[in-house]
Amino acid sequence: MKEYCFGIDVGGTTVKLGLFNQSGDILDKWEIPTRTEDHGKNILPDVAEALEKKLQEKNISKDDVIGAGIGVPGPVDDNGVVHRAVNLGWDVFNISEVLGSLTGLPVKAGNDANVAALGELWKGGGQGYKSIVMVTLGTGVGGGVIVNGKILSGCSGAGGEIGHIHIVDDEEDSCGCGNHGCLEQYASATGIVRLAHRRLQSVTEPTALKDSGVSAKTVFDAVKAGDTVAIQIAEEFGLYLGKGLAAVASVVNPEAFVIGGGVSKAGDILFSFIEKNYKKYVFHGSRDAKFELATLGNDAGICGAAKLLLD
Amino acid sequence: MKEYCFGIDVGGTTVKLGLFNQSGDILDKWEIPTRTEDHGKNILPDVAEALEKKLQEKNISKDDVIGAGIGVPGPVDDNGVVHRAVNLGWDVFNISEVLGSLTGLPVKAGNDANVAALGELWKGGGQGYKSIVMVTLGTGVGGGVIVNGKILSGCSGAGGEIGHIHIVDDEEDSCGCGNHGCLEQYASATGIVRLAHRRLQSVTEPTALKDSGVSAKTVFDAVKAGDTVAIQIAEEFGLYLGKGLAAVASVVNPEAFVIGGGVSKAGDILFSFIEKNYKKYVFHGSRDAKFELATLGNDAGICGAAKLLLD
Repeated sequence: MKEYCFGIDVGGTTVKLGLFNQSGDILDKWEIPTRTEDHGKNILPDVAEALEKKLQEKNISKDDVIGAGIGVPGPVDDNGVVHRAVNLGWDVFNISEVLGSLTGLPVKAGNDANVAALGELWKGGGQGYKSIVMVTLGTGVGGGVIVNGKILSGCSGAGGEIGHIHIVDDEEDSCGCGNHGCLEQYASATGIVRLAHRRLQSVTEPTALKDSGVSAKTVFDAVKAGDTVAIQIAEEFGLYLGKGLAAVASVVNPEAFVIGGGVSKAGDILFSFIEKNYKKYVFHGSRDAKFELATLGNDAGICGAAKLLLD
Repeated sequence: MKEYCFGIDVGGTTVKLGLFNQSGDILDKWEIPTRTEDHGKNILPDVAEALEKKLQEKNISKDDVIGAGIGVPGPVDDNGVVHRAVNLGWDVFNISEVLGSLTGLPVKAGNDANVAALGELWKGGGQGYKSIVMVTLGTGVGGGVIVNGKILSGCSGAGGEIGHIHIVDDEEDSCGCGNHGCLEQYASATGIVRLAHRRLQSVTEPTALKDSGVSAKTVFDAVKAGDTVAIQIAEEFGLYLGKGLAAVASVVNPEAFVIGGGVSKAGDILFSFIEKNYKKYVFHGSRDAKFELATLGNDAGICGAAKLLLD
């Protein structure tokens, strides 16, 4: 019986890899650099070589391996077709076929945020639920929608791109996507810094926050210390995020939202700002959705990637 | 081999019923009144009796019937549990079990808007697609999300409630759901009349529209005749609906939107107002979604209900 499985999470600077057993225990995990030069043509051969070496090192036969799952920072559809991954230099191609051919293993692929959501459902903050939306508050706002245990990839892999829901009409700054007023511009770590700069320029109340060096962490640390201005910034963050997640819930009616990414290190205090706005704007049929913190951190990607194979 | 199937669409005043063969041809269709008195306790027994009579009339044995699908005006989850249907007087119960027991047939159930979406995917404006969002612009704005041929019901049957996405911040009128600023308040037939009244009160340009008796139909008829004020109203409608559908696409990335309901009788001209705003606000990965008109009209519900059994 096949008893092993690989989970791979391709990032812009490193590829994280994990060796799993069927129960989902991580037997080993390691990283290799992501070689993005030459349109990223070395990335998949490097991954294949790393898997081969690991099998030799552990003395595992390829016959005992179910396959490899891989998460990619770009849209991936249900057939394993990557629809460009700008940070890796990749154009459109079927990654399941290419990595499958390089490794001789069955390969399933997904978008990295979607795959991380699957990981959190399986072994993290989403355990016990069948349908969740994972919200990753990092440099951007990533999203992953899981319905009845399966990733909702979308027809061209752009499902769960909740960071680009339009939230504010009169925004003059551009989002990374080219639009104006996307959720990501207010609810990401970068967005919180933007909100802080704007408020600190006009505020008259005393505050421990300083315009230079302000970060999502310093904002929420100050919130915990009772800083009025920091609380105002967090209120604004919570208004936009609560409103955005209410829109998401009106579409997919999940059991829970799982909040991850760097900003989520602030902990449960986030929920006090998000949930009241969520409940204000959401359709009543979705008002009871739970809010949970992600627990897997950087392992969410390799776990979810492995889970792609274990379904 | 079982070769027949029933599709049932429960509305607030009539229940529509259809007898189908496996290929989805409608062999017969008819209606019975919806008896909503006494908390709607007669509705399902009436339906069961109607099915029994039809089998006798057509001389069809129950052994040749695959089952019955039923669409309900309220949230229904994947297990067939109705989470209240206010217009029918129904509380929470498992309709698949109750109607199954009354008829002796396998019964599958769904929310009426979701079931209609499945019908349009199968035999209507969504043919050829696997993942669509159906948008029903009637008295309200209904939605149905189909992903890879299956209804996305949501954890408590509130999936696809896109009419209640928050779109406008400073709205003073209440939506039927109790919130303020829902998409339904601007993009339904009723919403278009509201937009028209507001504009006609302040407008100075000449227009054929009159404040009394204005309707979605008179607005779009005037649009087709080149009426400037009617075009302004349609632009406002398109702005809100385009923005709302962009949010929907950021979550589920459908291949197409299928527009139905009374307002859709205006035809393709609707798309000119919706699509430009959709493309302005949507994440680029979903920009190529197609817009189609629904084609089944009142038959969408019974068709989709039958399709629930034929999967």
